[in-house]
Amino acid sequence: MTYLDNNATTQPTARVVEAMLPYLTECYFNASASTATFTGADKPRREAAAAMSKLLNAEEPDCFIFTSGATESNNWVFSSFARGRKAGRVLVSTIEHASVSEPAAELARAGFEVVEVPVDAQGVVRIDALRDALREDTALVSIMAANNETGVLEPIAEIGRLIRELCPAALFHTDATQAVGKILVDLQGDWQDVDLLSFSAHKFHGPKGIGGLYIRPGFEVEPMILGGGQEQGLRSGTTNTPALAGLASAASEARNLNSPAMCSLRDTFEARLQDEFPEAVIHSRGVPRLPSTSCFSLPGMLGEEMVGALAAAGIIVGTGAACSAGAIQSSKTLRAMEVAHEIAVAGLRVSLSRYSTMQELTEIIVQLKAIRQELPPE
Amino acid sequence: MTYLDNNATTQPTARVVEAMLPYLTECYFNASASTATFTGADKPRREAAAAMSKLLNAEEPDCFIFTSGATESNNWVFSSFARGRKAGRVLVSTIEHASVSEPAAELARAGFEVVEVPVDAQGVVRIDALRDALREDTALVSIMAANNETGVLEPIAEIGRLIRELCPAALFHTDATQAVGKILVDLQGDWQDVDLLSFSAHKFHGPKGIGGLYIRPGFEVEPMILGGGQEQGLRSGTTNTPALAGLASAASEARNLNSPAMCSLRDTFEARLQDEFPEAVIHSRGVPRLPSTSCFSLPGMLGEEMVGALAAAGIIVGTGAACSAGAIQSSKTLRAMEVAHEIAVAGLRVSLSRYSTMQELTEIIVQLKAIRQELPPE
Repeated sequence: MTYLDNNATTQPTARVVEAMLPYLTECYFNASASTATFTGADKPRREAAAAMSKLLNAEEPDCFIFTSGATESNNWVFSSFARGRKAGRVLVSTIEHASVSEPAAELARAGFEVVEVPVDAQGVVRIDALRDALREDTALVSIMAANNETGVLEPIAEIGRLIRELCPAALFHTDATQAVGKILVDLQGDWQDVDLLSFSAHKFHGPKGIGGLYIRPGFEVEPMILGGGQEQGLRSGTTNTPALAGLASAASEARNLNSPAMCSLRDTFEARLQDEFPEAVIHSRGVPRLPSTSCFSLPGMLGEEMVGALAAAGIIVGTGAACSAGAIQSSKTLRAMEVAHEIAVAGLRVSLSRYSTMQELTEIIVQLKAIRQELPPE
Repeated sequence: MTYLDNNATTQPTARVVEAMLPYLTECYFNASASTATFTGADKPRREAAAAMSKLLNAEEPDCFIFTSGATESNNWVFSSFARGRKAGRVLVSTIEHASVSEPAAELARAGFEVVEVPVDAQGVVRIDALRDALREDTALVSIMAANNETGVLEPIAEIGRLIRELCPAALFHTDATQAVGKILVDLQGDWQDVDLLSFSAHKFHGPKGIGGLYIRPGFEVEPMILGGGQEQGLRSGTTNTPALAGLASAASEARNLNSPAMCSLRDTFEARLQDEFPEAVIHSRGVPRLPSTSCFSLPGMLGEEMVGALAAAGIIVGTGAACSAGAIQSSKTLRAMEVAHEIAVAGLRVSLSRYSTMQELTEIIVQLKAIRQELPPE
């Protein structure tokens, strides 16, 4: 099987699995018990916090609260924001993942003023529109760091500066699920204006079922899940020690990224694709993107059908949003970019991991050509 | 290390770890993608639902929605209940886990009428008090199936019948975290009046980070975590395939429980303990309990200190609630049972797994005697 849907989920590395195993077998103990220092069950959480802190250059490991993943983290941000409030102005972009846009829509139904900030034709948040939307009473801005479909990198540093300039008190959250572990993130540098940041381990070769929320020191978040008081009282539930051990390992390994190599692989793929399919539309090609992502349309071929045909040939790629691909509809991101409908429904997403090879990418082009030849003439 | 704190968490069995491994290594794919039938990533969820359905004799596998664990499931029940409501009468027992009592307290702060139903001196919910509390306007009743500290089994069947008799429209939720996989649960038999049931895999030799909520067909629950639409749209987030594979295996293995053997082990332990420490108070000894649990007090010895002394000798036991043992205070359950303070603070909990042996239990008694001899005379 050739797997090129790594924006959906990635393979845990051998080191990640090896790091998890002791906590699935002999050291299965409770990390919150007073006996955790004796049993060693307190180690994975400590190591995960330290590794995340290093990876994102956070102020301290205590800035990280672990959750079941970015979907929970994103929902948590909106739940915390709504608690004890009846109204407020909230800005999100038009290309957010459903785990941001749906909680935002729910706030709107509850009477909050929720404004969607548009993106340009390349999928980049329109700074002029954001500037207009950032009124004094804006209380929360949630804009993703990297888009799951196109890989477009939103200008988080610039957005942060603009928020601080126009609405110093507004909370700035970024869903960085696709960015963490794939590009350099510096929470004390360029990204110093980000207050809250969501991430998931399984997007960067860690295990599923673990992720977290970075909370800038000084910011208070209200818990969504109450109980035993784990995670500094902010997220209860028995500490998932094997998953945290895996996250710690994945975060350490992610510091040795070779982005230029992945970028060159992706660019070579796109050049060859364009050679073979001169009609191919490669989305967001002109703006900074994740090195891992190539989103393109072959007009006349339905994306969802192509995904099925490629899968039958042993190649797994994506279409639409990674997590909602079960439902056939044109991609939300491409629609927000105002890509013509017949192009948008042809969208395919090839997403690389650090283990992807040129051979795998060539295989896609070969298969796409074969599939095209089998199509009835128009 | 001798581990006898199995009500906090248990060791995944070798079969559970083996079931998880393929989904951590080669079959790491996205279960929600349209390609999941090609990759096989759709299998763990399907098997987990089938195994849970068999274990609890549910109507169908679709009754199960998977979450990160019972703490999330319990919070979800309260979150769903509160959605779209401004008021309502809610009953909980005085011995609920914090993941029920804290969401209930939050409902009370939001203006709901929350009533705590007391327990008797053995820790059993007082049916007379429940009958009085079950007024016509009662909308939600949440009473745990088995107490985490004493192991007391609440009379879920009787409580269910009473609710149906007095408040047919009330929702009946049970936090069955300590019961599932340890005692026989029959959702179409004795427990037919339970509408919602929470559980966690790691309490019955499954992995941490996975659990769920059983929802009786015909009952509607509003999602707490929105996004990609996984879990029938009721719980979004990338499907945790390795954990589900582990849960499926743990649930299958739990069908071969040997409760009488565990019960006899626990009873022998308690008889020997009472021989060696005639002053020992064994809590809830006179009522049906989980076979796994022995909760006792050795007057004059502080529970929290004993836990530390035993840990130093390589024996892990519990005190207070499993998940909140970090904070030293007398056990909530023992307080609700009106156990005298000096007895309650001496409380210890020994909880067995299916792998526990008499030798391990004898070791505790030997160590407790040694610790007592080192105590300064009163």
